[in-house]
Amino acid sequence: MPFENIKELVEEYKKIWSLNYALSLMSWDRETYMPPADASVRGEVTGVFSELIKEEYLKLNNLVQKYEGKENLSDEEKGFIRVLNREIKYYVKVPIEIIKELDKIISEALIVWRNAKNEGNFGKFKPYLEKIVDLERKIAEYLGYEKHPYNALLDLYEEGFTVDDGDRIFNILLPNLKDILNKVREKGYYPASHPLESVEYEIKDMEKVNREILKLLKMPEDSFRMDVSAHPFTIRISGSDVRITTRYEGKDFKETIYSVVHESGHAIYELLIDKSLEMTPLAQGASTGIHESQSRFWENIIGRSKEFIHLVFPILKNNLSFLKDYDEEELHKYVNTVRPSLTRVDADEVTYNFHIALRYEIEKKLLNEDIKVEELPEIWNDFMEKYLGIRPKNDGEGILQDIHWSQGSIGYFPTYTLGNVVAGMIYSSYKNLKDDISQGNFDNVKSWLREKICKYGATYSPKELLIRAFGKTYDPNDLLKYLREKYLSI
Amino acid sequence: MPFENIKELVEEYKKIWSLNYALSLMSWDRETYMPPADASVRGEVTGVFSELIKEEYLKLNNLVQKYEGKENLSDEEKGFIRVLNREIKYYVKVPIEIIKELDKIISEALIVWRNAKNEGNFGKFKPYLEKIVDLERKIAEYLGYEKHPYNALLDLYEEGFTVDDGDRIFNILLPNLKDILNKVREKGYYPASHPLESVEYEIKDMEKVNREILKLLKMPEDSFRMDVSAHPFTIRISGSDVRITTRYEGKDFKETIYSVVHESGHAIYELLIDKSLEMTPLAQGASTGIHESQSRFWENIIGRSKEFIHLVFPILKNNLSFLKDYDEEELHKYVNTVRPSLTRVDADEVTYNFHIALRYEIEKKLLNEDIKVEELPEIWNDFMEKYLGIRPKNDGEGILQDIHWSQGSIGYFPTYTLGNVVAGMIYSSYKNLKDDISQGNFDNVKSWLREKICKYGATYSPKELLIRAFGKTYDPNDLLKYLREKYLSI
Repeated sequence: MPFENIKELVEEYKKIWSLNYALSLMSWDRETYMPPADASVRGEVTGVFSELIKEEYLKLNNLVQKYEGKENLSDEEKGFIRVLNREIKYYVKVPIEIIKELDKIISEALIVWRNAKNEGNFGKFKPYLEKIVDLERKIAEYLGYEKHPYNALLDLYEEGFTVDDGDRIFNILLPNLKDILNKVREKGYYPASHPLESVEYEIKDMEKVNREILKLLKMPEDSFRMDVSAHPFTIRISGSDVRITTRYEGKDFKETIYSVVHESGHAIYELLIDKSLEMTPLAQGASTGIHESQSRFWENIIGRSKEFIHLVFPILKNNLSFLKDYDEEELHKYVNTVRPSLTRVDADEVTYNFHIALRYEIEKKLLNEDIKVEELPEIWNDFMEKYLGIRPKNDGEGILQDIHWSQGSIGYFPTYTLGNVVAGMIYSSYKNLKDDISQGNFDNVKSWLREKICKYGATYSPKELLIRAFGKTYDPNDLLKYLREKYLSI
Repeated sequence: MPFENIKELVEEYKKIWSLNYALSLMSWDRETYMPPADASVRGEVTGVFSELIKEEYLKLNNLVQKYEGKENLSDEEKGFIRVLNREIKYYVKVPIEIIKELDKIISEALIVWRNAKNEGNFGKFKPYLEKIVDLERKIAEYLGYEKHPYNALLDLYEEGFTVDDGDRIFNILLPNLKDILNKVREKGYYPASHPLESVEYEIKDMEKVNREILKLLKMPEDSFRMDVSAHPFTIRISGSDVRITTRYEGKDFKETIYSVVHESGHAIYELLIDKSLEMTPLAQGASTGIHESQSRFWENIIGRSKEFIHLVFPILKNNLSFLKDYDEEELHKYVNTVRPSLTRVDADEVTYNFHIALRYEIEKKLLNEDIKVEELPEIWNDFMEKYLGIRPKNDGEGILQDIHWSQGSIGYFPTYTLGNVVAGMIYSSYKNLKDDISQGNFDNVKSWLREKICKYGATYSPKELLIRAFGKTYDPNDLLKYLREKYLSI
């Protein structure tokens, strides 16, 4: 029993864990099967649960202090206390009035943002974003930080990740990605548009394709399921109940397929966390970035590889009659099309991190008051033009495209790039990957990931986990090597 | 605002209500979509929730005493305090060791019962039932009662219902039902078996039929849904989220249809409870028996009427090709077949209450130690022979057929008969019922039920509710009149 010395904490934490378990199920249900009239009641119930969870954290805050500085604890015990203290910190350090003010502005901002986006009118959203940034700056002060206020917020999503790390990573990525992008474009390999993008499909056919892909990935039927929702997501109810969703937009069949592979990557992480950590704060991913590394590894590095396309090609041919004139090579080309676009979520592997670099710079400078909210559209559009050679025609397809800021999520965006970076490190370190994919030996892939990363859950901080797995922290050079190999050998 | 004088209670109760809301969703999910590997974790989480709910009840126990004897409370406020005290009572009066002992024996008994039933071997289950009866007797002592220990248990399901009520009801029902049954059988109208019982159907066809029946019943799409589970049930998540399930056994199409109508009856009750009672202990049915009256009224009195058959006949004809040689009259006859059977759940309207009378007598005498557990098979088989003229060949089709006792539910069975009795009272009091059914005017039916019964939730005790609605408590003569009209006019 890995928690021998902190039994009392483990027992008490089960209450928080159980409340969160129910919250996860309520959240999954809200996006899948809940009758719509119940939305407001469910909102109220969720609020009551937040209060109950906060009460339990405050009780645990007293209990956990008994263990401060205690020696001879196992790695799991130290991890338990570390993560618990991180979870408590927000409740203890940030005054309830600030949290309530943020909750209030967010609930309004979300609606205003949606309208502003549709109208392409940043002015409408500006006062809300100003208020949110202001509150996030205050939260950063309450949480405390070294060097840069942004560090306090980055740490919420990626423990120990700082502006120094971010600057180092993006300073390496940007010029190199620009170089790769230029070379890819010079070859003229990818067309400006592709006929498959607009071909409509029958939802029941795509359903069947997705189910077969889940079988190919050996997703476990007894502890995993897939449903449909407006936006794809993965949710862990427990380590023996992990659920993903996808959506069927009716055209461009690759979208739903890659959402399934992406979310399956998140799900596999949760499923591979060691069962001995269940009902503890360690029964979750090490960080948002490490989680994203799993989904991106499965989606991009495995899912868009020649070997994987070879495996899924018969499934696609069998179910989608409109593919009758296409061969494997054309399909591989299609799902890997490199093409600068205005929208982050549509971006390919080469251009994706430009979108993140832009958001990272903006968040960093906003927190430090180096720039003002009113300057954002100009900064945004100039960056897009400089790096991708395209300029948004309105704020709806520019600065307003993402929901994150309207939800008060500042510090989240960089974890997408960390996901890509760590996926590159996995690729670099995994010797027989191509063989394992070719043979559809995804149990091998899972074993590899489990031993290196997944089984530990949140036992170690992400940096410590990376050092244990790869002997180094976030290294963007592996990602660049992967991209050069894949896209410059065409 | 109907709870002006007890705001503090209302606020505190929201925690219990929210925890129960999540428990309901977890329970629904367990029977419908939960990946099976999560069963044990969900069991553990449910246990943690029970502890949390108990803690909140104990807090409320102190608070509610402030309001004892307070004057000028509204009916809703009085009802709130009455029901809350009923909910608290079990936690306060029954020692935790007894509850834990019962939980433990139940978890074992359930498995033993299932095996014993399959083997038709009562001896195997006997020691468990003895232990359960013994614990239930103790619980009755802790809860307290007048006259008869069974009264303490009956009150858990049907507030204020006693052995005096039960004896009175069954003493009227038994000879009269026997008389009706004899006369029906003398006519020889119903065949000993019917070819439709063994006709297999396609699940997708029945799905469609059931969906059309839900439309016919005007079930609200924004606050209601239907899924599939091993055993049909209704669950209220909230007043704006009520869910039913059905099952598809593949043959005898009437089974799934009438389970849908039955569960819809339960659901309609929950949906019609006044929204001002939401998040209070009044947002539930008045009792188990009153709840059952709604499901039985919809299933039997509406659903098996000539007028309803006329409405569903085109739906059935359109979707079930095997009905091509049948007419409405034959269908009506088929779904109303009276035929003594060994199994309660297969029983028709005329014979059903014999099955309950038997269980009522057994429970009553067990509680009072008038009979011993070891005598039950003989008592059972003799009763079946005397009243229905058939004798079980083994205990699996006799004394072991129901799950209830293995779950520690003693005192529940009589509420099935109360449901039939109250449904009869509704039939007797509702003047234009046949017209409303003929015209498919189920909004009228719902309005009638809402005003008489449903809107009050648990504001009034079942007896008070019945007196308000019908000027009398449980009166079996209305049910007998209904059965005579329906079955003796053939």
